[in-house]
Amino acid sequence: MASALPVSSADVREAAARLEGVVRRTPVLTSRTLDALVGAEVFVKAENFQRMGAFKFRGAYNAVAQLPPELLARGVAAYSSGNHAQATALAARELGTSAVILMPEDAPRSKREATAGYGAEIVTYDRYSQDRTALGRALAEERGLALIPPYDHPHVIAGQGTAALELLEDTGPLDALVVPVGGGGLIAGSAVAATALHPGIRVIGVEPEAGDDTKRSLESGVRVTVPVPRTIADGQALPTPGEITFPVNQRLVDGIALVSDAEIVAAMRFAFERLKVVLEPSGATALAALLAGRVENPPRRIGVIASGGNIDSRRFAGLVTG
Amino acid sequence: MASALPVSSADVREAAARLEGVVRRTPVLTSRTLDALVGAEVFVKAENFQRMGAFKFRGAYNAVAQLPPELLARGVAAYSSGNHAQATALAARELGTSAVILMPEDAPRSKREATAGYGAEIVTYDRYSQDRTALGRALAEERGLALIPPYDHPHVIAGQGTAALELLEDTGPLDALVVPVGGGGLIAGSAVAATALHPGIRVIGVEPEAGDDTKRSLESGVRVTVPVPRTIADGQALPTPGEITFPVNQRLVDGIALVSDAEIVAAMRFAFERLKVVLEPSGATALAALLAGRVENPPRRIGVIASGGNIDSRRFAGLVTG
Repeated sequence: MASALPVSSADVREAAARLEGVVRRTPVLTSRTLDALVGAEVFVKAENFQRMGAFKFRGAYNAVAQLPPELLARGVAAYSSGNHAQATALAARELGTSAVILMPEDAPRSKREATAGYGAEIVTYDRYSQDRTALGRALAEERGLALIPPYDHPHVIAGQGTAALELLEDTGPLDALVVPVGGGGLIAGSAVAATALHPGIRVIGVEPEAGDDTKRSLESGVRVTVPVPRTIADGQALPTPGEITFPVNQRLVDGIALVSDAEIVAAMRFAFERLKVVLEPSGATALAALLAGRVENPPRRIGVIASGGNIDSRRFAGLVTG
Repeated sequence: MASALPVSSADVREAAARLEGVVRRTPVLTSRTLDALVGAEVFVKAENFQRMGAFKFRGAYNAVAQLPPELLARGVAAYSSGNHAQATALAARELGTSAVILMPEDAPRSKREATAGYGAEIVTYDRYSQDRTALGRALAEERGLALIPPYDHPHVIAGQGTAALELLEDTGPLDALVVPVGGGGLIAGSAVAATALHPGIRVIGVEPEAGDDTKRSLESGVRVTVPVPRTIADGQALPTPGEITFPVNQRLVDGIALVSDAEIVAAMRFAFERLKVVLEPSGATALAALLAGRVENPPRRIGVIASGGNIDSRRFAGLVTG
């Protein structure tokens, strides 16, 4: 008998109840043009419309909300140069506590400002000479703060899974679900939720070509580390799958599709011009895989998670004209 | 006793019934950041998500659908370099007839392709040497086609008004409604619908500074013609108010706010970065008026029509980096 996974579909349902009225129930977008191009009915879960602009708020809130009251009162910490920073800062504010976020000195000003705008204290480090994991742990220990990991925690994974749960509630049964993979939290939670509802559903992960650590790891059966990926999909520029997310994905994910940076930009442009929505590079990879024909034998009804939309208009301009 | 207007709120309600299941019921977007910046509760009716990317489909469909069967069977014609071309082409296809669209030779390729993609025949003219109104009439007469005007027709106006009707159904009573003004069809229909539901509502039009013909006309009490406006808001680059729209707006519109091109770009950037949606310049003018403080004494609950999102990603890139 297979051992129990660290996250169950009941955990995802409980997370959904906890998040109700706190997260935004994001819309599911459809497009006749998209359907015609893909040759399937495609349902896009638009997590770019989530609070703070990405699905990350779901997992961060679900984790912070479950801290024991005495820990919660002391505050939380996180290290991230990206969406998890804003997610943790906003979750802390919503739950009436404080957050300290460790960010690289050269993080984009817009992300620092957004994080500070949610009331978090920002501590910077030099990403070239300092180890953020060690620094984060030291900071959390020193101040007695709970460290909220970006993906490798059952509460974070269960929270992320609510995105797929909402999608399936809105669409009914789907034949496949296509989900971006960075550390693997979103796809792990989504796979738990989706396969519990529809055991036959194909769950397909999407990684940038340069960061195919999960694909390699699934193929070899052990967690493989690749060189730090150079890709425009900064939310997926991770070199190795998570310790907790990987076994879940090993059990429930059917395969990984890879997309190039050019295919990601084409999908961002398609989202802009045809769907009229803004996706950041990592938020567009699942759509890119479908549009570029990287999902083999696409079945009839396909769900796609468009995971985030935090991109500066000038960076977007550079990508679409570059 | 005031004379009857050419469009009644019953016409708008009938249009809504006719359009049900044909137009998309577009979402109403809200943002805490926007509310904080404006100092009001703001509800954005996102017509960029309408079929073919703008509110124009509402009016075109409502007009084409009411043609007598023998006229409908012969086909329709329109002249437009912009959204009305696509709107008429799509309405004709939906209603099982053909469309001939007169477009300037130098119309953007994307707009020509989109219009042709809906099955329309495109006839081009030289916008510098030929008069499109005369050409359009000649073409329609020669082929026996019904000419669908872009704004100056009661059926078109009633169709456009369904945007405001849907918004108010979703939000409940509003204190003000802010609407872009080009030929005046959208605001005329919206004002008819809104003032019938909530007689106290303030209806505010927004024009680009360079194209303030409606503002001048309302101030002087007669239709004034200005030089052809030079503005990025191409959907509002009209020199004079409509013959049929103007008397409606004279009766029901409370005032006109003007916005600069720079304010329009700032609003497009805000929509992109904070709302995660794509607005074309004309689609962003009502939002721009609010963000730039051009609406005096903003009341508590304000509806805004974001009228369209048809902009090429490269043109957007040029505007936000220019």
